[in-house]
Amino acid sequence: MTRDLTITAVRLTPILVADPPLLNTQGVHQPYTPRLIVEVETTGGVTGVGETYGDAKYLELARPLADRLVGRQVCDLNGLFTTADEVAVDSSRVRGQVDVGGLRGVQTADKLRLSVVSGFEVACLDALGKSLGLPVHALLGGKVRDAVEYSAYLFYKWADHPEGVAAEKDDWGAALDPAGVVEQARAFTERYGFTSFKLKGGVFPPEEEIAAIRALAEAFPGHPLRLDPNGAWSVETSLAVAAELGEVLEYLEDPALGTPAMAEVAARTGVPLATNMCVTTFAEIQEAFTEGAVQVVLSDHHYWGGLRNTQQLAAVCRTFGVGVSMHSNTHLGISLAAMTHVAATVPNLHHACDSHYPWQSEDVLTERLTFDGGKVAVSDAPGLGVELDRDKLAFLHRRWLDDDGTHRDRDDAAAMRIADPDWVTPSVPRW
Amino acid sequence: MTRDLTITAVRLTPILVADPPLLNTQGVHQPYTPRLIVEVETTGGVTGVGETYGDAKYLELARPLADRLVGRQVCDLNGLFTTADEVAVDSSRVRGQVDVGGLRGVQTADKLRLSVVSGFEVACLDALGKSLGLPVHALLGGKVRDAVEYSAYLFYKWADHPEGVAAEKDDWGAALDPAGVVEQARAFTERYGFTSFKLKGGVFPPEEEIAAIRALAEAFPGHPLRLDPNGAWSVETSLAVAAELGEVLEYLEDPALGTPAMAEVAARTGVPLATNMCVTTFAEIQEAFTEGAVQVVLSDHHYWGGLRNTQQLAAVCRTFGVGVSMHSNTHLGISLAAMTHVAATVPNLHHACDSHYPWQSEDVLTERLTFDGGKVAVSDAPGLGVELDRDKLAFLHRRWLDDDGTHRDRDDAAAMRIADPDWVTPSVPRW
Repeated sequence: MTRDLTITAVRLTPILVADPPLLNTQGVHQPYTPRLIVEVETTGGVTGVGETYGDAKYLELARPLADRLVGRQVCDLNGLFTTADEVAVDSSRVRGQVDVGGLRGVQTADKLRLSVVSGFEVACLDALGKSLGLPVHALLGGKVRDAVEYSAYLFYKWADHPEGVAAEKDDWGAALDPAGVVEQARAFTERYGFTSFKLKGGVFPPEEEIAAIRALAEAFPGHPLRLDPNGAWSVETSLAVAAELGEVLEYLEDPALGTPAMAEVAARTGVPLATNMCVTTFAEIQEAFTEGAVQVVLSDHHYWGGLRNTQQLAAVCRTFGVGVSMHSNTHLGISLAAMTHVAATVPNLHHACDSHYPWQSEDVLTERLTFDGGKVAVSDAPGLGVELDRDKLAFLHRRWLDDDGTHRDRDDAAAMRIADPDWVTPSVPRW
Repeated sequence: MTRDLTITAVRLTPILVADPPLLNTQGVHQPYTPRLIVEVETTGGVTGVGETYGDAKYLELARPLADRLVGRQVCDLNGLFTTADEVAVDSSRVRGQVDVGGLRGVQTADKLRLSVVSGFEVACLDALGKSLGLPVHALLGGKVRDAVEYSAYLFYKWADHPEGVAAEKDDWGAALDPAGVVEQARAFTERYGFTSFKLKGGVFPPEEEIAAIRALAEAFPGHPLRLDPNGAWSVETSLAVAAELGEVLEYLEDPALGTPAMAEVAARTGVPLATNMCVTTFAEIQEAFTEGAVQVVLSDHHYWGGLRNTQQLAAVCRTFGVGVSMHSNTHLGISLAAMTHVAATVPNLHHACDSHYPWQSEDVLTERLTFDGGKVAVSDAPGLGVELDRDKLAFLHRRWLDDDGTHRDRDDAAAMRIADPDWVTPSVPRW
């Protein structure tokens, strides 16, 4: 008898979670950032959870998609894409430019849709795994490693949000120069055991960021280091930084914006280039790979439309001799669990993955995921192996309900303007 | 509680199945061809079935792999590849040349291994699906179509095997000229409802095969037609055939041997080129795609290492704007069911798949699969949706046991030498 695993209900809960004042080339993180928690309930009362971006433009797509999923089989994951295609995108929401909030390259209707699908796909996989008594990695063909390595995600940051006491206070302090960056890195190693480090750059002039990387190389000799200015540099600046730091960098991430610029940099340096900006969809791969523009693609299952698409991306990369690792934007434990399950199944994962998770003091789980020696153990429990804490979810949803709209759409430039009223999003290349 | 689906036993049954005297550029099919039936038994007594090549070189790899699988989880499909890598390949069995039997391009240890893995992967998926109560397509993300279209696989053929009465007699008669090919095509449409046609060429001089395709185009106006000489032609001959038949061909399959020759043909004709010879592994993709050598890859889940790898291949093709369809070598109903499940999940399947199945009068199933309007319905029963007939299996295995060795390794040239003692495998290009 074929098993009936009909989706009986889909619940969407937008939340706001605390976020420290982390700096990037476009501004600073606001005190709260929106996420969307997806719950998919199936025949038999099993519920699976997923998580994705929570800005209004994503919520608008998520609601009609949720309605269409009720009555479908939870294992019909290929059908999620065709169903999502039927949901219209409000074109006024789609900006044909770099997405300020996500720093995720050119924004298109398809990208929005895939990010929404990813939350549903993970929730379906969690529900399916729980229903069948199998971990998500087993639904993806089985883990090839028992733990997934993550890197310390270092940020220039202020001690406090410019909003002042209205915001949550974090315990990381400021990091605005090489010494501060090294101190932050030490805290990361002590708390989580990370052994590789990525610095979010594009904040200060390149020479200051070069100095920070040099300080890290001195403090952690031999450890893999990465610098990511989010496309803030010109080709010439990118080449100058590559020449300065070539010997200590594992890779340089998105030094310049767009495939042509990345290809020019790649052609003139031996330092590998990684990206989560010029290759964020399957449609962008052919040009970038053919031109040798990138040596490592940083996958993000939210961008790519879920865990199974991430596996397909990894297969494409393997076929073309391009490395693969994982990008991270602000996320909670559900997405960290999802990343860990899929990363465990990718044979050609040769770099530690990024994760913002240590920066998120709040979560919606009964138990936070932990890093041991910089790694997250791959759960063998059914589904993702995480449990939703309904009180925490309700608390963070209440914050979203009570918000006056300031934080429902991530806007790093708006946050920066509180500190610097004259701030405008820098034009690219900034240096 | 996580479900225990340990593999408790693996049974391998080599068989010989009747095969008509079908002609190709290297000779003629022998009266019997070897296949290997794989059974994987799991905790709870559920058994899954798979099928792959049965020549000695495959059996030698299959036995140690079978031993290593006992005790592993049946859902650990990614682990099949690493386990298979541990099984040594007798290098004397690996010929660095075109495989006479399979006409499947350069033979390597990896290709042998992947073909063996495919039989185990399908058996594991069948066992997993039966254990969970889900069809195989659901384990692959769910079907995107309810039936899969196949094409009529036309062959030049003799009425009888040169062995005479010792061999099984088929009811297809001879087909050795345009009228015979058209008659065969009519029989195919009447019996199975196929609406597209592929002719296995490379048997007669190109002008005769051009005449056969022209006769088909006249008899079945507007229907998709394909011609596959298995790389028997030079670049110039390929171009001449393309020029002659361009208006009636859906695609030309492997006109010339190897990626450089195919790229040269592709550069000089607008007729799409398909292949199951120059792109048969992931390692061969980059060169072929970068050089635009092929417009359609004909996947074969046996070659590529199973159904999940076939999905990955389809993703790579989709990413690079290359079409995808399915190749077939002599196979039984288990493999037809497997092909149908995976084909049902591939969104970018834009050509009818090949299948030798109509040529196989014998099978190991209680009930043969059927073509309705040229299509096989996608089963929603648990697993593959097929049932092994143990009496038939035993009968065909007995034939293998009783064989004096003549048919245990497919050898189309040896069969041809019975009719023509002076026959030598033609050098390439033949024309």
